[in-house]
Amino acid sequence: MREKTLTMDTLNPQVKAVEYAVRGPIVIKAGEIERCLEEGGTKPFSEVIKANIGDAHAMGQQPITFLRQVVALCTFPELMESPSFPEDAKWRARRILQGCGGHSLGSYSASAGVEYIRKDIAAYIEQRDEGVPSNWEDIYLTTGASDGIMTILRLLVSGKDSSRTGVMIPIPQYPLYSAAISEMDAVQVNYYLDEDNCWALDINELHRAYQAAKQHCQPRVICIINPGNPTGQVQSKKCIEEVLHFAYEENLFVMSDEVYQDNVYAPDCQFHSFKKVLYEMGPEYYNSVELASFHSTSKGYTGECGFRGGYMEVINMDPEVKAQLVKLLSVRLCPPLSGQAAMDVIVNPPQPDEHSYQQFHQEKSSVLGALAEKAKLTEEILNAVPGIKCNPVQGAMYAFPRIFIPPKAMEEAKTLGMQPDMLYCLRLLEETGICVVPGSGFGQKDGTYHFRMTILPSKEKLKVLLGKLRDFHVSFLKEYSALE
Amino acid sequence: MREKTLTMDTLNPQVKAVEYAVRGPIVIKAGEIERCLEEGGTKPFSEVIKANIGDAHAMGQQPITFLRQVVALCTFPELMESPSFPEDAKWRARRILQGCGGHSLGSYSASAGVEYIRKDIAAYIEQRDEGVPSNWEDIYLTTGASDGIMTILRLLVSGKDSSRTGVMIPIPQYPLYSAAISEMDAVQVNYYLDEDNCWALDINELHRAYQAAKQHCQPRVICIINPGNPTGQVQSKKCIEEVLHFAYEENLFVMSDEVYQDNVYAPDCQFHSFKKVLYEMGPEYYNSVELASFHSTSKGYTGECGFRGGYMEVINMDPEVKAQLVKLLSVRLCPPLSGQAAMDVIVNPPQPDEHSYQQFHQEKSSVLGALAEKAKLTEEILNAVPGIKCNPVQGAMYAFPRIFIPPKAMEEAKTLGMQPDMLYCLRLLEETGICVVPGSGFGQKDGTYHFRMTILPSKEKLKVLLGKLRDFHVSFLKEYSALE
Repeated sequence: MREKTLTMDTLNPQVKAVEYAVRGPIVIKAGEIERCLEEGGTKPFSEVIKANIGDAHAMGQQPITFLRQVVALCTFPELMESPSFPEDAKWRARRILQGCGGHSLGSYSASAGVEYIRKDIAAYIEQRDEGVPSNWEDIYLTTGASDGIMTILRLLVSGKDSSRTGVMIPIPQYPLYSAAISEMDAVQVNYYLDEDNCWALDINELHRAYQAAKQHCQPRVICIINPGNPTGQVQSKKCIEEVLHFAYEENLFVMSDEVYQDNVYAPDCQFHSFKKVLYEMGPEYYNSVELASFHSTSKGYTGECGFRGGYMEVINMDPEVKAQLVKLLSVRLCPPLSGQAAMDVIVNPPQPDEHSYQQFHQEKSSVLGALAEKAKLTEEILNAVPGIKCNPVQGAMYAFPRIFIPPKAMEEAKTLGMQPDMLYCLRLLEETGICVVPGSGFGQKDGTYHFRMTILPSKEKLKVLLGKLRDFHVSFLKEYSALE
Repeated sequence: MREKTLTMDTLNPQVKAVEYAVRGPIVIKAGEIERCLEEGGTKPFSEVIKANIGDAHAMGQQPITFLRQVVALCTFPELMESPSFPEDAKWRARRILQGCGGHSLGSYSASAGVEYIRKDIAAYIEQRDEGVPSNWEDIYLTTGASDGIMTILRLLVSGKDSSRTGVMIPIPQYPLYSAAISEMDAVQVNYYLDEDNCWALDINELHRAYQAAKQHCQPRVICIINPGNPTGQVQSKKCIEEVLHFAYEENLFVMSDEVYQDNVYAPDCQFHSFKKVLYEMGPEYYNSVELASFHSTSKGYTGECGFRGGYMEVINMDPEVKAQLVKLLSVRLCPPLSGQAAMDVIVNPPQPDEHSYQQFHQEKSSVLGALAEKAKLTEEILNAVPGIKCNPVQGAMYAFPRIFIPPKAMEEAKTLGMQPDMLYCLRLLEETGICVVPGSGFGQKDGTYHFRMTILPSKEKLKVLLGKLRDFHVSFLKEYSALE
């Protein structure tokens, strides 16, 4: 028998090391259960509720009409003649197509994206940041935010042994970061968010993590996710200043993942972009700290994950390195044009004097209002369960509650060779059909256990989910405590 | 002055090593000239003709109506009510949306793509390959073919020093391959196509390249581009059998880039898929050789580059490795849904009993007919120029003529620190506005010089282009020969 060329033994070990819990074993299990139900199998529930991934449309959220009108017009320009499409949508579609080769969404764009759209994004950022200048040549369209994050890390990661690049990431983190670090063979440098303080960034913890890492690698970049994923916090301006000061002092490249910038629910919280805060710290900082910030079509109020749209703004990058960035982007040719078009609508929405303004804002407010309500509801119901403690969901789309796991359950998990919160989430899935992701997939302080759930199901379904979760948790505690 | 974190000195050296000529220095220069013309600058020509990249729509090719109808319907399902869209397009759009979470193109799909579409692709492959079975679980949707190629290479590349993975690629090659090899720090193992034999694959050359490479690396994969890019040849069944036998013997993973499978023009040529040929070689081969083949929405008769759609079929992969592949894909979540939808139309076109059949086939034949005519025209005109020799453009979208460069021009290029064909292409661009890519960007036998040009401009424009090229070439020869 001829041997295979590619086996687990010969596979790139960096690929082997990659983990991505959001689509990991528990989600694969959920898929199996769904198929079993479809084929008439019986379970103690009638459907799997997927609260594992920030996929708004899959949970029933409706697309923003205006965005889809513009993209449909770009896709099939014959619709420009149709009276059922509003003029403001047609105007935007015409403008986007003007920026496309042959006026077609089917052409490659420049690798950094359509120039018009880059300019619209720069104008949007200036407005968002109350006049802080944005240069369109610093804007790069991406295939979702993930693509941009991977690309910037690719530039930064190098070295062997003690000169290997250290990448500082929050714990808990969104596992794209740890996966990219594994794939690129960089060193993951954990800094812990402060659960007792609503998952705030703690500057002392940054110093601790940095000093410890310097012993065995070269920390060169710090990643921040704000609003937080999976933790849902919105960082204060003061925290952000401290991070930027720290990055300035320690010569770190700053990557700020701001894909949830439109998802802020807590009345006492506000989104502060890293760029704006940096600007306000004065020219010494603003003209020096290298900062890449990331946005996406997938989150916010549009939830257009399938479009794979996004952008990054990169400031203070060495011009020669910028040329290298463009070269690297060009190998993959360009981000999908429909994603670029969707991004353009987000940064260039209908204005008050335009026909579509009212409907657009009604749809937007309705999505964001419902999310705010569900954020509050989730926190309240979870905190009423004994053995669960949940920080406020100030922003983003997730709750990351801490769960008490009885010692006997921990022993059982150990016997099964799995993390205690994996055991918990598997049992939850098998008994209730609710699919959430164990905290161990995001990282957490030793001895603490969590899970991440989205707040995306409809209010009615979310109530059912939270009710089932409460009942499950109570019986789980009871079952394992009885074993003591 | 605070130093930058990311400089040319600290940049990942593997990024620095990447080269991608198709969007390289000559194309950047072409962009500068275009901007100069727009701003009223004067040049000895009125427009830049970009024959550097296989971007059909940018060159005026019209999209296939049916494809765009289906994608527009998926994007804005309210159009299902519109009488101006045909039922066969609506039927396909409904089917695609049924496979999407929340019936929305805005949801993430499974990382391998929408299940329906994977099944349609498998059915298409079975039909294309006259009954050779295709399993939909071997099909993975991708973000253009480039993404699939990078992903498979990522699995295969590992090792240090003499155990580094060797990747056999044709010379001339499409520079995605060399770029990916540089980025991943693999070893590029060149096998030369036989220019004197219409760029055929030569089995002796494969052996030579393999044996030489074994001295310093582990050759583990062979890449073939058929029909060829940049060389335009269509490999014979016999050649393909020899490659597969060689891969079988030497235990190589086979990557067959078949994105031009619909672009075959020469009456005596036919596209043979590697998979079908492997099947016909018998079960010993068919059940053992690991083969990934790649297709795309960007080429063929659709030319939908901007959609970033594509798929790969991977056979005989170790099941555990397959799980690792899915894990790796899942980190980037999923390919763009509109690209997946476009791919579905390509593999599931209108049937003879459907309303859109006639228009679809008329549009398809018109594109492919025009390309065949331009392939012939290009070859004929180029071969009539003294000092240019061009193999027949049997398929794909490019001519890759060999050009004679006078010794004095070579000396001048050396003085300028550039390749002779770079000097040639730069002068061509500056004097005529024609943008083509130097052969050195694709690789060529030492001492030979070429350029790659697409056959995508309209027939009229192509004639103008070829006329200007002839005049330029004659005067270039004259100028430098006079210096002898």
